[in-house]
Amino acid sequence: MSIQFGPEYVRAIAPYQAGKPISEVAREFGLDEASIVKLASNENPLGMPESAKQAMLAEMKEIGRYPDANGFQLKAAVSEKYGVPQDWITLGNGSNDILEIAAHAFVQPNQSVVYAEYSFAVYALATQAVGARAIVVPAKDFGHDLQAMTKAIQPDTRLVFIANPNNPTGTFLPAAELEAFLKQVPPNVVVVLDEAYNEYLDPSLQYDSIAWVRQYPNLLVSRTMSKAYGLAGLRVGFGIAQPQLTDLLNRIRQPFNVNSLAQAAAVAALNDTAFLRKSAELNRSGYRQLTRAFEVMGLEYVPSFGNFVLVRVGQDDGAGARVNLALLKQGIIVRPVGAYGLPQWLRISIGLPEENEAFLAALKRTLG
Amino acid sequence: MSIQFGPEYVRAIAPYQAGKPISEVAREFGLDEASIVKLASNENPLGMPESAKQAMLAEMKEIGRYPDANGFQLKAAVSEKYGVPQDWITLGNGSNDILEIAAHAFVQPNQSVVYAEYSFAVYALATQAVGARAIVVPAKDFGHDLQAMTKAIQPDTRLVFIANPNNPTGTFLPAAELEAFLKQVPPNVVVVLDEAYNEYLDPSLQYDSIAWVRQYPNLLVSRTMSKAYGLAGLRVGFGIAQPQLTDLLNRIRQPFNVNSLAQAAAVAALNDTAFLRKSAELNRSGYRQLTRAFEVMGLEYVPSFGNFVLVRVGQDDGAGARVNLALLKQGIIVRPVGAYGLPQWLRISIGLPEENEAFLAALKRTLG
Repeated sequence: MSIQFGPEYVRAIAPYQAGKPISEVAREFGLDEASIVKLASNENPLGMPESAKQAMLAEMKEIGRYPDANGFQLKAAVSEKYGVPQDWITLGNGSNDILEIAAHAFVQPNQSVVYAEYSFAVYALATQAVGARAIVVPAKDFGHDLQAMTKAIQPDTRLVFIANPNNPTGTFLPAAELEAFLKQVPPNVVVVLDEAYNEYLDPSLQYDSIAWVRQYPNLLVSRTMSKAYGLAGLRVGFGIAQPQLTDLLNRIRQPFNVNSLAQAAAVAALNDTAFLRKSAELNRSGYRQLTRAFEVMGLEYVPSFGNFVLVRVGQDDGAGARVNLALLKQGIIVRPVGAYGLPQWLRISIGLPEENEAFLAALKRTLG
Repeated sequence: MSIQFGPEYVRAIAPYQAGKPISEVAREFGLDEASIVKLASNENPLGMPESAKQAMLAEMKEIGRYPDANGFQLKAAVSEKYGVPQDWITLGNGSNDILEIAAHAFVQPNQSVVYAEYSFAVYALATQAVGARAIVVPAKDFGHDLQAMTKAIQPDTRLVFIANPNNPTGTFLPAAELEAFLKQVPPNVVVVLDEAYNEYLDPSLQYDSIAWVRQYPNLLVSRTMSKAYGLAGLRVGFGIAQPQLTDLLNRIRQPFNVNSLAQAAAVAALNDTAFLRKSAELNRSGYRQLTRAFEVMGLEYVPSFGNFVLVRVGQDDGAGARVNLALLKQGIIVRPVGAYGLPQWLRISIGLPEENEAFLAALKRTLG
């Protein structure tokens, strides 16, 4: 018998399936890169803000130096924006890093982690990576069933992941429901509230999760700069929690996890409210464009609060993969979600008007 | 009693102490940033190569997109340079990431990890982060005692870290000793051979560790782009191992761990042999400059094979901290190594001739 390396729980992990990069699809399907439309990774179709680009260019002469391990300038900007002290902030190599650091910092093998069916794939991966047991709570209307999640918490549960809005379904939990949930979670169980898509919420739905952080020592709010801020390629996210949790996160965090250009660009982008507003407006009109077309085509979709829409492209479990392949051949990259247990659906990121149009045209050709 | 979060082994970690950034020293000591000399983090004093800068500028329009999770172009460049297939390569957010991924992928709580006294601090941190037991083998002449390390391996040992050259001492293990060691390590124990400073070795000392990777399925060679390649601020490193280990590493690796600009810059830098040669030459002359001055001053130093020198600045255990503070006040940042158990020593990164000179002048003023 050959030698087995690594713990059994590591060998059991199925790695994350990322959206196919444009260059890979071009190679695979013999297409011209310029003709490809990528609506697969919930990226900002505007790209990065000009303010962030200028900040990066100014920082470029320092690339031979290590990044600031303490992220002084970026923490100062987050501190200012959210009104929390710097020792409440953890910087991450994207919020993916915050989610994984949280699992490592708070959970050990044979303890358990609670998260919802159809929620972000990284919750499962982070749980597996620390050898913990996943308690997956069935979704309600494609979203989190918070009452069932409360009941699912076991004596050995150390972490609960909540996504609001949720990816890949786009569902939203109103503030009152979330607050009721936080009140019921045992105080020794850490709640990670993943708000990656927060900036796309209508102002009427916004809520003050930082006020909850002040109230609940077991709450960690996670944010990313990869979505509305347009910095996915640079890798920046951050977590906000009281010092007891933050201190533990920083024991697990790699000291130079956030590169220098990302730190500089993030400072600029955080304060670029004009860019954020423009991104949210573009997203709202793109959402109307896509969902109206789905209605005309008679396609079921899940009402979304993020920068993407989950749409049902067939009634059989081969539908998602089949339509996805047909779209790829036409140079349209979207996200199949069979691995999430949604084989009849595709997740479409909201793009520029012309990108949405190209996708809709290809979808119509595919579905006949 | 207040609630304790996280496993006990996480609460016990003392976070990595990074070299102070120039901006932090300027704030703390009221100095002008431009007047500060940083010789603290073994960075390349030439900064990044121009070829890497051009590659980054060309990639900048893609920052709104996620990086290629599979790192196709960068793996192709590594594959070409080292003559290994792409599925032997793991990309890291610096080689720090490779070291931590290795600990997570191969070791579980209550197993053990072997490394040498006075070796890189991240070995201890990565071991603690997975709740494993550290077996620290006493150094021999400031370097690794490979025979003692072989004997130290226990039935529950899953990983051995070897640094060659070693940081912070600069010692070097000749190829024959390393090969003899690899032959004796049990085949179920992974050896991480950390070659962060390899590019500074004299050609006469170079050895073919990739040939050993082909021979030993339990060997992982780790490389960084943060030292001789001048890309510390961007965060790129890579590991080379046979597919069985590489596959496990990629189950733990965060999918977007290496940002887009880092991938692009690394491809350019890997092929920039002129820059590498220039960096190594500058390092050799700077090494002579520093060590001759130490000899004139009657200061003991450890002969170094890296881009830094460990020098003894006093005979009492307060010496390192005291001299370090005196240097900081003069705007010179070096690395105290008391946390490594070397409180009488300082580690000096080799800088530009004028930086080395400024450090030596400040050291002379300090020591009288």
